[in-house]
Amino acid sequence: MSQLKNDLLLKALRGENVERPPVWMMRQAGRYLPEYIGLREKYDFFTRVQTPELAAEITLQPVRRIGVDAAIIFSDILVIPQAMGVEVLMEEGKGPHLPKVIKTQNDINSLSTDAVEAKLDYVMKALALTKQELNGEVPLIGFAGAPWTILCYMVEGKGSKTWEKAKQFCFTQPELAHQLLQKITDTTILYLKAQTKAGADVVQVFDSWAGSLSPEDFKCFAQPYLIQIADALKDDAPVILFPKGSWYALKDLSESSASGLGIDWCISPKIARELTSDKITLQGNFDPAKLLLPVAEIKKEVKKMIREFGVQKYIVNLGHGITPNIPVDHAKAFVDAVKESL
Amino acid sequence: MSQLKNDLLLKALRGENVERPPVWMMRQAGRYLPEYIGLREKYDFFTRVQTPELAAEITLQPVRRIGVDAAIIFSDILVIPQAMGVEVLMEEGKGPHLPKVIKTQNDINSLSTDAVEAKLDYVMKALALTKQELNGEVPLIGFAGAPWTILCYMVEGKGSKTWEKAKQFCFTQPELAHQLLQKITDTTILYLKAQTKAGADVVQVFDSWAGSLSPEDFKCFAQPYLIQIADALKDDAPVILFPKGSWYALKDLSESSASGLGIDWCISPKIARELTSDKITLQGNFDPAKLLLPVAEIKKEVKKMIREFGVQKYIVNLGHGITPNIPVDHAKAFVDAVKESL
Repeated sequence: MSQLKNDLLLKALRGENVERPPVWMMRQAGRYLPEYIGLREKYDFFTRVQTPELAAEITLQPVRRIGVDAAIIFSDILVIPQAMGVEVLMEEGKGPHLPKVIKTQNDINSLSTDAVEAKLDYVMKALALTKQELNGEVPLIGFAGAPWTILCYMVEGKGSKTWEKAKQFCFTQPELAHQLLQKITDTTILYLKAQTKAGADVVQVFDSWAGSLSPEDFKCFAQPYLIQIADALKDDAPVILFPKGSWYALKDLSESSASGLGIDWCISPKIARELTSDKITLQGNFDPAKLLLPVAEIKKEVKKMIREFGVQKYIVNLGHGITPNIPVDHAKAFVDAVKESL
Repeated sequence: MSQLKNDLLLKALRGENVERPPVWMMRQAGRYLPEYIGLREKYDFFTRVQTPELAAEITLQPVRRIGVDAAIIFSDILVIPQAMGVEVLMEEGKGPHLPKVIKTQNDINSLSTDAVEAKLDYVMKALALTKQELNGEVPLIGFAGAPWTILCYMVEGKGSKTWEKAKQFCFTQPELAHQLLQKITDTTILYLKAQTKAGADVVQVFDSWAGSLSPEDFKCFAQPYLIQIADALKDDAPVILFPKGSWYALKDLSESSASGLGIDWCISPKIARELTSDKITLQGNFDPAKLLLPVAEIKKEVKKMIREFGVQKYIVNLGHGITPNIPVDHAKAFVDAVKESL
């Protein structure tokens, strides 16, 4: 860590004083960048994910192009079901498809939780290669999906508006659900530990579908597993938890071993600070649709957001992934505004 | 009103003491009922909406079948764009499609806001017919979409996960957005007043996409128009506002002229009561996916929910519409549990 030229992200996560907050963007290595689209035309999704040279190249693109303060490894949350022995198909622009969904005790018994590091060796190689190419310029973020979100896909087989099948599974067969969540958690802990060993300076856990759960169900089916992951990783690397939509869990999670909490734009900075009693670094929460504003207004809005969160214990980010239709100079304006805010 | 045999809903909305809370379900007149599916096979969507006898029949089905404490007129929120001169197509199971979206000042100028009652005469006839057939058994609820939600469809042209085009329109051309929102509001007020004249005892305003907005943007593009509607209707009928997902607005809206606030399941009854300081009747907030539990457990969960909200100033409902896959006896168990709770 001491070799990093820009360690703003790590300082912010340790709660140390910074001159300005660090900035990165969820899905910054992605579809709004012409150089990414160039690679997408040549290589299919899992080829891009599983070829360390391609994943490293895609990871570095936004560092070079828009000057973010952190790289996040290009990969996918569904590598965990794959490592557990579940087939995952990805049709470009259509989202994931898992032909064989989890339904029974036998399905759960047949899931593997070992040799994760070996099975996801390509992620470790991509991290090591990226780390080397970054040459200490900015920190490297590893990531995984949260157990509840991974269960959603494993039970539902594809994306859903309501995650009704996943919920039915949890509500009507809670014992099976907890077995599955625990297996995903165990695998994810091994995976994230391996990522930190391979070069990740920070890890983020994406609970993209947390907000579909009631406060009580979140506390039952999501929160305990997020807390297990944060506890298990605490001596390896700072952990950022991003339970999208679950504003109601911010207080509890601010008391966990996590170093940072991601939030979406459906909560004001003031309320988010109140709920977390200033105990934890917050990350977010620009509405990605605001990147469609003219550049001057993007900058104005970003500076306003920084004033509202405060410079300390804060990581500038979006409240969700950047969408494909954002012009590159608008994405860059988001980053530039933070640097100008000095 | 004095002729109603069951006026629990009106009492709850007036804050009067009740022996048990009233119960109804969003989308109760719909796709989970075999008798509805029977009609759907014979008549297309807008035929069902525009034929008073069919709309009345569909409205009455859940009153007969599961014994809810209120009927809600079978219709669609997109009749308002239609009345304003915008074509709306509906493909069964695919959602709405508005071929000509709103983009410019000219598009807005060309929208009509008058003669709403005449243009939506079929809704008034359906209300009158339903009212007559109900014969005072339970109150009749009329409804409309909220201006922000209607703008979403008019600008986007179809459903969306992110409502990015609608947001871009509002963020980059706020003057046009406010003109459009005001025109929708004016039309909606006329429409809801006509509904109360035709027989609606209560009206509900559905802001289904409120939760896609940040607290600040909700306050700019949604809240003022909801408040205008509640103010305009306050001498006509009790108004229930349902800004789905916008928990952050509950305090402000509890101070409006509305009589009730709908909430989804992503907030606990306790916090919802705290945010609204017990000033207003709350409606909700059962996760529709919980209707997939066994009947005995549905009843247990409903009773627990009533204990948490309290019997007074409360309307038992779901936190969103009932989904097509719910067995009828599960829907009935939801209603029965409330009656047993006496």
